Amino acid sequence: MSLTPLCEDLPQFLQNYLPNAGQTENTIVPFVTLTYAQSLDARVSRGPGVRTTISHPETKTMTHYLRHHHDGILVGSGTVLADNPGLNCKWGPDPAANSPRPIIIDTKQKWRFDGSKMQELFIKRQGKPPIVVVTSEPIIKEQHVDYAICPINDTTKLVDWKKLFEILKEEFNIRSVMVEGGANVINQLLLRSDIVNSLIITIGSTFLGSSGTEVSPPQTVNLKDMSWWKGITDVVLCARLADD
Amino acid sequence: MSLTPLCEDLPQFLQNYLPNAGQTENTIVPFVTLTYAQSLDARVSRGPGVRTTISHPETKTMTHYLRHHHDGILVGSGTVLADNPGLNCKWGPDPAANSPRPIIIDTKQKWRFDGSKMQELFIKRQGKPPIVVVTSEPIIKEQHVDYAICPINDTTKLVDWKKLFEILKEEFNIRSVMVEGGANVINQLLLRSDIVNSLIITIGSTFLGSSGTEVSPPQTVNLKDMSWWKGITDVVLCARLADD
Repeated sequence: MSLTPLCEDLPQFLQNYLPNAGQTENTIVPFVTLTYAQSLDARVSRGPGVRTTISHPETKTMTHYLRHHHDGILVGSGTVLADNPGLNCKWGPDPAANSPRPIIIDTKQKWRFDGSKMQELFIKRQGKPPIVVVTSEPIIKEQHVDYAICPINDTTKLVDWKKLFEILKEEFNIRSVMVEGGANVINQLLLRSDIVNSLIITIGSTFLGSSGTEVSPPQTVNLKDMSWWKGITDVVLCARLADD
Repeated sequence: MSLTPLCEDLPQFLQNYLPNAGQTENTIVPFVTLTYAQSLDARVSRGPGVRTTISHPETKTMTHYLRHHHDGILVGSGTVLADNPGLNCKWGPDPAANSPRPIIIDTKQKWRFDGSKMQELFIKRQGKPPIVVVTSEPIIKEQHVDYAICPINDTTKLVDWKKLFEILKEEFNIRSVMVEGGANVINQLLLRSDIVNSLIITIGSTFLGSSGTEVSPPQTVNLKDMSWWKGITDVVLCARLADD
């Protein structure tokens, strides 16, 4: 399905929140944008593994515009196993060249590139092959797939995010990453003002209901540099995580 | 604390969603506006009974502007027991005359007018005395307080909303009601497109965290006639509940 044209006022609205070359030249980690679409009741899907359309076509185009501006696009394995997303970039002249590299957090090594939408797009030269993040030597190594072995944080028992982003920059020259989900990944990174450079949230004007998959961090999170954009049915918030 | 001036573009933005005399002349129920402020993660407070500031001063003034346009303002007993709110209207020339009448859902008869902020404002001629909604003859009848005896819905075991709004119009000449909370009341009325005429939600750009009190109806709720307003840190959605 083709994208609707990009709203004219979006590039300027987004500009200060996008990665630019200068920012990450001398840093050991990439520029990280945390971005997702949610309903009014802060749900990102109707339920675990339920593919759900929340936002208006105009903000879907915005998502592809954001993908155009990032080297990598990171999602958890739950999202790829549920949605089988393409994660490529349909905005701009050359999808293959402009698509970010998919980065899949797959600590339990459950996902396969073979037979996936991503593989289909890669074969058609409309997307890049993925980097799969594992915590130990991969049992199966698939063709065209790179593997990033990243330690688990002993306290949280979760991916050591700081270490992972260092690996992505150092070993794979990923200078900017767009984190798109799932909820579990988002809820962890909302607490990391030391890692996340920009927060871009689309709010669709609908309620998905209390059994939906929600984004709500374990504690209060304050923001700074807030700016809103309003569309036909959605609004978009750009902000940064406050340091408190 | 005095209000900041009303944003100039708000009256026109709100106009189509406010009650007007013509709408409720021949109806047996008042015009009902469901309105509340929430965080990005759809929380209306940091926790049960925790008084929480979510919105910017400019949208707080909007709330008083809305109160100016309604005969009644309805909240659940949980909210009055927790926040001891004044529920009066500080916008406009004459608070006593322009304040809506507080309507307290107190099926367990736990709240008392005596010693409350509402009583203080009433004595100072800055607010009106309340109507207390009970399900049986009140054990204690306080001075200046009216009581609306409303049946419980046998299936839901909750207030029979349709019946209640009929009583408010018929017995107390309440032609418009602004429902401000708490979450339990909101979650019930979000399902009632047969009762709610307008939905006005303020979203503050902060996260209150997963232990906060959340607004999320038990099922998907679609909206229609959506319109957004953006302020300095908040956005406001005006809409109507779709009939599906």
